[in-house]
Amino acid sequence: MVLFRRLLGEVLRSRRMEQGRTLRQLCGDARVSLGYMSEIERGQKEASSELLAAICAALDVPLSEILSEVSDAVALEEAAMVLRLESGLDSVRGPSNDGDVVASAA
Amino acid sequence: MVLFRRLLGEVLRSRRMEQGRTLRQLCGDARVSLGYMSEIERGQKEASSELLAAICAALDVPLSEILSEVSDAVALEEAAMVLRLESGLDSVRGPSNDGDVVASAA
Repeated sequence: MVLFRRLLGEVLRSRRMEQGRTLRQLCGDARVSLGYMSEIERGQKEASSELLAAICAALDVPLSEILSEVSDAVALEEAAMVLRLESGLDSVRGPSNDGDVVASAA
Repeated sequence: MVLFRRLLGEVLRSRRMEQGRTLRQLCGDARVSLGYMSEIERGQKEASSELLAAICAALDVPLSEILSEVSDAVALEEAAMVLRLESGLDSVRGPSNDGDVVASAA
């Protein structure tokens, strides 16, 4: 399952690091605790919409831009998941590939 | 402030209605209570990442597609907000428009 908060955390973290800012600096600007922000970046906590807006403001990046990046990252994971399922089907079918085996991807 | 959950709710609701499904039908598939789902669609409650994934699966729409639509809707609201701020500045400057007045958009 592709989880929004994990990819959101990765995008927020990479934006912060591009700007050469520490977690501590960003937390001061966004008025969020260091521990909470760290958990958000690691995808362990959900950020409320208000907090997400505050983080975007502290990063000086529009929310739409962050969401667009997250959408792209999610699309990549979705595609990779389809590929894994397809290769799983291939390996169940095996080398004979007679087409009679119906494999469950679940 | 542009709130993610409000625009997410609007996108989820419009997708459900495009499919001609009732809230009750979707809730059964996504295993979420009717009241909670209704609050998510109205932007009054945050959906956890797990629930968001379940709703997308129930709608049979990739999460990346939903996020991309939300990103576009957020971008529109951000642009409208800039326009409002600019027209606010114009009205502070007034008809003389001498350029000396520095108006605060806050």
